[in-house]
Amino acid sequence: MASEPGDNGPDFSRNNGLLPAIAQDAQSGKVLMMAWMNQEAYEETIRTGQAVYFSRSRNKLWYKGEESGHVQTVVQILVDCDRDTILMKVNQQGAACHEGYESCFFREVAPDGLTTIEARLVDPDDIYNK
Amino acid sequence: MASEPGDNGPDFSRNNGLLPAIAQDAQSGKVLMMAWMNQEAYEETIRTGQAVYFSRSRNKLWYKGEESGHVQTVVQILVDCDRDTILMKVNQQGAACHEGYESCFFREVAPDGLTTIEARLVDPDDIYNK
Repeated sequence: MASEPGDNGPDFSRNNGLLPAIAQDAQSGKVLMMAWMNQEAYEETIRTGQAVYFSRSRNKLWYKGEESGHVQTVVQILVDCDRDTILMKVNQQGAACHEGYESCFFREVAPDGLTTIEARLVDPDDIYNK
Repeated sequence: MASEPGDNGPDFSRNNGLLPAIAQDAQSGKVLMMAWMNQEAYEETIRTGQAVYFSRSRNKLWYKGEESGHVQTVVQILVDCDRDTILMKVNQQGAACHEGYESCFFREVAPDGLTTIEARLVDPDDIYNK
């Protein structure tokens, strides 16, 4: 997992230093979520081997699963052609979504509105109101 | 494919009206690329049934494949819990990446630098210099 974030990794000089990071289940290929990483979040991800994002709403590092226990163990990190988007293959503990779904993409845009296409894995109240 | 982009679709009041849109191969599950959509690009995607993005560098709609022929036919559109990220399952014609790879995520971040993990599908010169 060790790597240098310089010229050989994501380019944090782009997009105001905040890059989209996609988490994909390493086994099923399901896209679990998209969040943001600054350079510090990326380096913490490398250091810990678990996904660390930058929370724009809380304006600080977000150690994914720090509250819920639903951590993402990073198996592989890919960058796109412009090196300004990150794709992580992860092993997801529990549910990626704070609403208790395996994936944050649990709703399909259907002609008559949003349709939920996943069953909840866990009750959000059980995750955060312990 | 018809749908209303209002309360029942992506929320373009967020992220300055420009939402990340992830394209995933509907068959293989491979993540192909991430680009941006404003409301107009989204509506054009719905209307045409093929991915239309907003190019930030060219500051205009980007009909994916308009030059290369490598269009993305949309099979399913999902939104995340905050409705500010779009995930499209697509059938990709040719290569998603302008560098000729099936996916823009053709490089892994390895300890000693970036490692290319895909073979080129097509020569970029054959796509754009016709």
